[in-house]
Amino acid sequence: MNKQIDLYFDFSSPYSYLAVARVDDVVAACDIKVRLIPVVLGAIFNRLGWQSSPFLAQPRKLAYMWQDVKRQAKKYSLEFEQPTQFPIGSILPARIATAFSDAPWLHDFCIQVFKAYFARNKDISNPETIEKILKQMDLDPQEILPRASSQETKNQLKLITEQADGLQIFGAPSFIVHDQLFWGDDRLEDAIEFCLRGEH
Amino acid sequence: MNKQIDLYFDFSSPYSYLAVARVDDVVAACDIKVRLIPVVLGAIFNRLGWQSSPFLAQPRKLAYMWQDVKRQAKKYSLEFEQPTQFPIGSILPARIATAFSDAPWLHDFCIQVFKAYFARNKDISNPETIEKILKQMDLDPQEILPRASSQETKNQLKLITEQADGLQIFGAPSFIVHDQLFWGDDRLEDAIEFCLRGEH
Repeated sequence: MNKQIDLYFDFSSPYSYLAVARVDDVVAACDIKVRLIPVVLGAIFNRLGWQSSPFLAQPRKLAYMWQDVKRQAKKYSLEFEQPTQFPIGSILPARIATAFSDAPWLHDFCIQVFKAYFARNKDISNPETIEKILKQMDLDPQEILPRASSQETKNQLKLITEQADGLQIFGAPSFIVHDQLFWGDDRLEDAIEFCLRGEH
Repeated sequence: MNKQIDLYFDFSSPYSYLAVARVDDVVAACDIKVRLIPVVLGAIFNRLGWQSSPFLAQPRKLAYMWQDVKRQAKKYSLEFEQPTQFPIGSILPARIATAFSDAPWLHDFCIQVFKAYFARNKDISNPETIEKILKQMDLDPQEILPRASSQETKNQLKLITEQADGLQIFGAPSFIVHDQLFWGDDRLEDAIEFCLRGEH
């Protein structure tokens, strides 16, 4: 039986950066498939009655979060620099990752977008930033951007976000292994352990 | 130089239970002193503009929290049963732990109170529950309870809670190592690592 973890994330989520950037190394020794699934976290927050990221309503927790992400990034040897704008519009890269979910370059693309935002303070809501990333990866923006902006992709991302909401997801990253939800970068190892034990 | 971690907790906090129950094992191999410091977390929540535990305002996150605590307790081989009442008044055991912060039985007392609430669904806001715990530990409630309820102890717990607030604590458990705050049972190992490295 195929072992699989669904990793739900948002490009605007700092702990999603940590999880997506390290997941390949963490599963390297196991025979587990990781599906990277972008969602519009803001839409889930709205459904839960929150106007935006719950961090914004809690300045003290927000200040702590940046300290914590910085320490965690250092622990994992990941580049990090606190972005000046937070949160940020992440719909364009999310649509690209939705439209090209099977592309061999998906994982690398996600990491490049996360690093642009969380390590180099780039405005990933600006299509030019995303175009530049695609070009640096030797991909053709003229081919990719129209498909990412198609009605089909928009509907697809909306549907996936609704499904994530149905799975009781309330933050990112979230890992789904069979019927179990694990929330937060800190639970990556537990999600993998649960997946390997095959308790279902 | 003495290495020390200050562990701020509330008896009503499930992740505080996990941290307090496992901290001795985790620091067993290192020369670190752990100070258990009870606070009135509700008072800190009020100062932050929250009426009660932020979990109560977020039913989906609350439901997840119980699943997560159950899994974590299992991972750490700790007894756990979701209590029927949450949160619960924790001021009496907090006052005892304040008044007897230097007692050799403090750590064991804390674990017994946590287990009464989080493993045996006992009402720890009821003085009878606390009296029973003291007796089972061969301690004399007639000696302990009056000192716990003295004005001096009340003032002391209030002062410690204000100090915790000044340290930017916003949840429990929180670990303070020198000037650094680590929040959550998940950060216990990081706090210890930081303490051992002596980066300050």
